[in-house]
Amino acid sequence: MATRRFDPDRRDRIIDAALDVIAVEGVAGASHRKIAARAGVPLGSMSYHFSGMDELLTEAFTRFGTSISDRFDERLGRAVGIDAARQAVVDLIHEDLLDSQRELVLTHELYTLAARKPEFRRITRDWMARSRRALGLHFDPVTCRMLDALIEGLSIHAALDTDAQDAQDTEPLDPEPHSRARTAEAVARITTTDSTASDRFREATHE
Amino acid sequence: MATRRFDPDRRDRIIDAALDVIAVEGVAGASHRKIAARAGVPLGSMSYHFSGMDELLTEAFTRFGTSISDRFDERLGRAVGIDAARQAVVDLIHEDLLDSQRELVLTHELYTLAARKPEFRRITRDWMARSRRALGLHFDPVTCRMLDALIEGLSIHAALDTDAQDAQDTEPLDPEPHSRARTAEAVARITTTDSTASDRFREATHE
Repeated sequence: MATRRFDPDRRDRIIDAALDVIAVEGVAGASHRKIAARAGVPLGSMSYHFSGMDELLTEAFTRFGTSISDRFDERLGRAVGIDAARQAVVDLIHEDLLDSQRELVLTHELYTLAARKPEFRRITRDWMARSRRALGLHFDPVTCRMLDALIEGLSIHAALDTDAQDAQDTEPLDPEPHSRARTAEAVARITTTDSTASDRFREATHE
Repeated sequence: MATRRFDPDRRDRIIDAALDVIAVEGVAGASHRKIAARAGVPLGSMSYHFSGMDELLTEAFTRFGTSISDRFDERLGRAVGIDAARQAVVDLIHEDLLDSQRELVLTHELYTLAARKPEFRRITRDWMARSRRALGLHFDPVTCRMLDALIEGLSIHAALDTDAQDAQDTEPLDPEPHSRARTAEAVARITTTDSTASDRFREATHE
């Protein structure tokens, strides 16, 4: 693509291109050159718009986290009452989070980056804080943290448990391992705060 | 290191070296050359012992998953009674899973690989199956899946929520976000099966 003199969206387009390249090549394979080519901008404009790869990665993964947080806000903002809120969480897991191979890959790329470089945990912290604020429209803060962790774990396990090409070689699996009903049951349990069993267990652990 | 004529542990040592290199450089940076150097073996012995990088990665991540599963088996095998089993789960999260930066990185490297290449989901499926078998000493199969997902989510979130170098710039956080008491409460809730609230919610979702 030819260099354009007026291109106010160029920075924006580079950020989107970075996510596209990371989705295919990983953070490790995302070079300035590949991202510039994908965005259709001259290589020189990369250093004009970004101080370096860390700034670009930060912008890209912040945008990615924000796009998922927006769906949390939308679904949970529409829910009225606790049962609708629980249903919204089930929908988030089954209709949004599990849907996209691209999002699965980008999420794990971000977590790998944050695991290795603590400075990127700002992005994962902000993302978690936003998810919990959305959940906080309906649930108490302690429940929000637990529920956010449960959503994470259920989404990751469902994605990693599907589509294995050699699935028939592994041990017989439950026919409906990740059904909506199961998710609904898990969400119900973690958001049920009046359980006498949990009170007894808290006492038993002396904390 | 000099080539050794008799070296029955060589294949084994290459597998360990692969994990060491992945922990530092990532899957993307793990070359035959680096792994051979780390293991102290001649480059040529890599192709003698492994058909290629995919076989080596499979062996390495299988070993990694097995080492974590062994701790699940050990802690859960020792527990007697439901409260001890719940406590064992809390210990797994707080004493084992959160403890090691290396394991955090390796877990995310594996998940990223499996997200991108479905053939590696055999490893994550087998790992999950083994965790659930260990949990199954104490909990019903449906609860095991939920609990396994909760363990995953709590471990990931706790790790990603800590040690951010710019933590002081983010919004005020809960002083004890990942205390053992909180984890114990989450484990109690997800393993409490007699909740009338969850029955009502299951009915409400018509599934």
